[in-house]
Amino acid sequence: MVALHDFRKVDWEKWLYASETEKAAALSEFHALLKSWQSTEDNQAGSHAVYSIVGQKADIMFMILRPTIKELNQLELKLNKTEIAKYLSPAYSYVSIIEKSSYSKRETDPYKDPEMMAKLHPNIPKSDYICFYPMSKLRGEKNNWFTLEKEERGRMMFDHIATSKPYTKNIKRIITGSIGLDDYEWGISLFCDDPLQFKKLIYDTRFDEVSAKYAIFGSFYIGNYMAEEAIDIFFA
Amino acid sequence: MVALHDFRKVDWEKWLYASETEKAAALSEFHALLKSWQSTEDNQAGSHAVYSIVGQKADIMFMILRPTIKELNQLELKLNKTEIAKYLSPAYSYVSIIEKSSYSKRETDPYKDPEMMAKLHPNIPKSDYICFYPMSKLRGEKNNWFTLEKEERGRMMFDHIATSKPYTKNIKRIITGSIGLDDYEWGISLFCDDPLQFKKLIYDTRFDEVSAKYAIFGSFYIGNYMAEEAIDIFFA
Amino acid sequence: MVALHDFRKVDWEKWLYASETEKAAALSEFHALLKSWQSTEDNQAGSHAVYSIVGQKADIMFMILRPTIKELNQLELKLNKTEIAKYLSPAYSYVSIIEKSSYSKRETDPYKDPEMMAKLHPNIPKSDYICFYPMSKLRGEKNNWFTLEKEERGRMMFDHIATSKPYTKNIKRIITGSIGLDDYEWGISLFCDDPLQFKKLIYDTRFDEVSAKYAIFGSFYIGNYMAEEAIDIFFA
Amino acid sequence: MVALHDFRKVDWEKWLYASETEKAAALSEFHALLKSWQSTEDNQAGSHAVYSIVGQKADIMFMILRPTIKELNQLELKLNKTEIAKYLSPAYSYVSIIEKSSYSKRETDPYKDPEMMAKLHPNIPKSDYICFYPMSKLRGEKNNWFTLEKEERGRMMFDHIATSKPYTKNIKRIITGSIGLDDYEWGISLFCDDPLQFKKLIYDTRFDEVSAKYAIFGSFYIGNYMAEEAIDIFFA
Amino acid sequence: MVALHDFRKVDWEKWLYASETEKAAALSEFHALLKSWQSTEDNQAGSHAVYSIVGQKADIMFMILRPTIKELNQLELKLNKTEIAKYLSPAYSYVSIIEKSSYSKRETDPYKDPEMMAKLHPNIPKSDYICFYPMSKLRGEKNNWFTLEKEERGRMMFDHIATSKPYTKNIKRIITGSIGLDDYEWGISLFCDDPLQFKKLIYDTRFDEVSAKYAIFGSFYIGNYMAEEAIDIFFA
Repeated sequence: MVALHDFRKVDWEKWLYASETEKAAALSEFHALLKSWQSTEDNQAGSHAVYSIVGQKADIMFMILRPTIKELNQLELKLNKTEIAKYLSPAYSYVSIIEKSSYSKRETDPYKDPEMMAKLHPNIPKSDYICFYPMSKLRGEKNNWFTLEKEERGRMMFDHIATSKPYTKNIKRIITGSIGLDDYEWGISLFCDDPLQFKKLIYDTRFDEVSAKYAIFGSFYIGNYMAEEAIDIFFA
Repeated sequence: MVALHDFRKVDWEKWLYASETEKAAALSEFHALLKSWQSTEDNQAGSHAVYSIVGQKADIMFMILRPTIKELNQLELKLNKTEIAKYLSPAYSYVSIIEKSSYSKRETDPYKDPEMMAKLHPNIPKSDYICFYPMSKLRGEKNNWFTLEKEERGRMMFDHIATSKPYTKNIKRIITGSIGLDDYEWGISLFCDDPLQFKKLIYDTRFDEVSAKYAIFGSFYIGNYMAEEAIDIFFA
Repeated sequence: MVALHDFRKVDWEKWLYASETEKAAALSEFHALLKSWQSTEDNQAGSHAVYSIVGQKADIMFMILRPTIKELNQLELKLNKTEIAKYLSPAYSYVSIIEKSSYSKRETDPYKDPEMMAKLHPNIPKSDYICFYPMSKLRGEKNNWFTLEKEERGRMMFDHIATSKPYTKNIKRIITGSIGLDDYEWGISLFCDDPLQFKKLIYDTRFDEVSAKYAIFGSFYIGNYMAEEAIDIFFA
Repeated sequence: MVALHDFRKVDWEKWLYASETEKAAALSEFHALLKSWQSTEDNQAGSHAVYSIVGQKADIMFMILRPTIKELNQLELKLNKTEIAKYLSPAYSYVSIIEKSSYSKRETDPYKDPEMMAKLHPNIPKSDYICFYPMSKLRGEKNNWFTLEKEERGRMMFDHIATSKPYTKNIKRIITGSIGLDDYEWGISLFCDDPLQFKKLIYDTRFDEVSAKYAIFGSFYIGNYMAEEAIDIFFA
Repeated sequence: MVALHDFRKVDWEKWLYASETEKAAALSEFHALLKSWQSTEDNQAGSHAVYSIVGQKADIMFMILRPTIKELNQLELKLNKTEIAKYLSPAYSYVSIIEKSSYSKRETDPYKDPEMMAKLHPNIPKSDYICFYPMSKLRGEKNNWFTLEKEERGRMMFDHIATSKPYTKNIKRIITGSIGLDDYEWGISLFCDDPLQFKKLIYDTRFDEVSAKYAIFGSFYIGNYMAEEAIDIFFA
């Protein structure tokens, strides 16, 4: 599954000064688009979620999963041509792919393993909050993740997983790879009903050797999940 | 308490060329909003302050505290839909949370300790000036805050607190954490009637080992507190 | 052959609100321009391809090869003066030159060697996807590519080529040099029908010493090839 | 004395297409403002100078000294509400404070020492040229200004002063501190009738240990002083 | 001689939609300005050249030499007030000064040496191409150009000159200093009829110790010289 995180700003003045007819038409077309995305999700051919973003980095974010980059690209093009898109301007985007961890110890064929299949073809959890950030591993002159032995990297990753263990009950995560697709190496999407858990998890793990010495973090985005009714309130 | 620092630029030409009716309506709606924020503050369910920012980084800043991110997000959405927001454009924002210091020696339950409760649910001091800046701790190839022992970090933090001791009478502070919420690790908000004290405090502490070797500073913002009448003069 | 990668954003609102007459005229002029580029390609005097870019970095990308910088410059000027260009705004561009590798062991005169001639005067492969990124080699205080002995650099390059060997069947590449022409030292253009191969190749090679220790990567762009009909659908 | 360096771009098209009446009104209001600033300067309650900036970084710069940040902030607000400000857009600004050097050997009370008072409450020299740049001192992993002993820092500062000695006859300077007020630690304003002297001074001092090893420089701005008549020619 | 490199983007839509009368008036005024610049050049009181820039960094570049910064500043102001400037927007600029190399072994008074005088008061070569880039020397924690002995720096500079020797027949150069005037320490302007020579020269010299270990490069700009007729074709 390929992932697009698409952050946009709302031109509130333009929206608020649009006529009621224009707004109704834009929202109706937008809901129809969301309905078609929902059909795709119901058919297990993709997933999506819409968020209200906290702070000025963006106002709204679409997280979309589709089987191929071509489908994502077409969806994006369709979204750009909607009426509602007239009121949205680009703020940030991230392209990445859900993948099997290279540090997984599982030996079985992932395509015959239902747990792994769920991981590779997830539905986006409809938790109240998302925390998204891209990250890379340091290739410093002294500390260089990519010149370490695989065992060493594996050991640090397993320590890292141990630190985050107590959070796995409350925080769901979708880890995506983006080497060759976007400007960082991974995208991290965390989902939780209590956003303070994000801070606790990321603070705790920052002392892990893998984070402390090797993590390079991009911007952090916090979003509040919007079901269809919340979207109407957002644009009310 | 969750904190939003929301910096905006004023489109002065647009404002000055608006009709008196438009301006009066925008200000009246804005004062009503501030009044509702004041009710929240009177009910000890949040706090806010409005500042005029010095220099070109921004013109006006809203610092807002609310119990949850959802409330902050809704407040922000409401502000964005006001008439006055038509004359404001985004300049910078910062999302963070007031938290108990991890280096605190206090063993008691903070929720039963009135002094700690005041720290965790503060009212924003209505001093004449604010100095806000975000900061992180260095994770360098040689000097790495997050690979130090806790005792070592604690020792440096206590030295740091000692340096700032002489300033505590005049400078109030609200330290917020933002790991996982925004792009730096902490937000520092200092409050004082004499803005030169900010410079003296930060200059003195820059020689502390924790600052000299480990501090990474974002942009510094100086604001002048505006009570409601000052806001009217600002927009006059 | 000189290469221009020219990324542009589409002003969708402006385009969607243009009259049918304006849109038809702009597309007809644009197709005539593409036809003239195709004649150049048919005459083996250059090559071109048009891509739809995934994510917000850009919407459309033109990759163009011409024998001289003057021809590229004139082509760019002509494109900028078309009707369709009114709806496009600059997003990024890259200027570079196809060259003989300095690590090549070939001793023969490249201008008499048909395989080398094909490499120096390639047609852009019309694969479904392109992955473009610029890169430089590190001149760090400890790790400095340009102070290494040529044999050392050659050894690392050959290891690198060995890692990418399994991908050469599926991924075509055009490597261009840009020292003195643009802000990185090389441009890498990869072509494949399966975009996940890009990620696999670049992930695998990131562990090569030459990448791990010496590579500095710019932004990564993923594009979906558009033949003429696809361009009409794109602008429909 | 608090200093504001306020750089702006001129929207020349807007200005040139304004009616003669609009231009005359804007200039007349602007001259009245400059006159009020001059009264302040005549009353030794502040100082100001206006410059035409060379190159595209900005077109015009206001350097203003006032006893308090509040006065600077009010002056800025007043300037932003003038007619001429409609034709100016923000380019850069810097907030800092004139201070007694921490490396000064003078033991006397500066407020009783006329020479020091002149340094702390200077008039901006009306030399033909200004060179302004902000700077910080390196806090590197190996070379860290703020972990050096005070004697060591003092020694380097005195060497630095010795290098600049031959220039003191021609170049006047106002050094301001900005730790906690703006993004660098100091602002340097040099004044001279021969702008090539700036380059010679800064080139010579770059080899001083304090500059070579510890200086981090921001952008350099060169401005040409404009007396009132020059301002009229500038806007003619 | 003081140098201004002034890069601008053309608003092609605005230009193409201007009336024929407006365009004719703008071009006629622009040619008159160029004619006055040519008189200055004929009187050996300055020099200029106009280039079409390849890629999206800019569309047009003016390189101007004048005896003083004041003259450059006035020329810039005059250019900004022309009709053609309405269609141009700032893209980048660089301010620097032609100077005698500090590593020159010449002992004679440069003002009595015709060869040196030609170097200090050059005419801009009217070669087909220009390559411009600003650069600084590294002041790293380990490798620091400005703490090296003068002999050591001289040795590296002479090695560097030796590498570029084979190119001197084809490539003319104007080296300008910008310490204290702009954001890098030097500006390099190379002139040649074959732009691939730029890449060869800069690639070869990148292995020189002075470049490999100490050079920090800004953006590279490639321009195609436009005589007056070419300017008319450019704006046709």
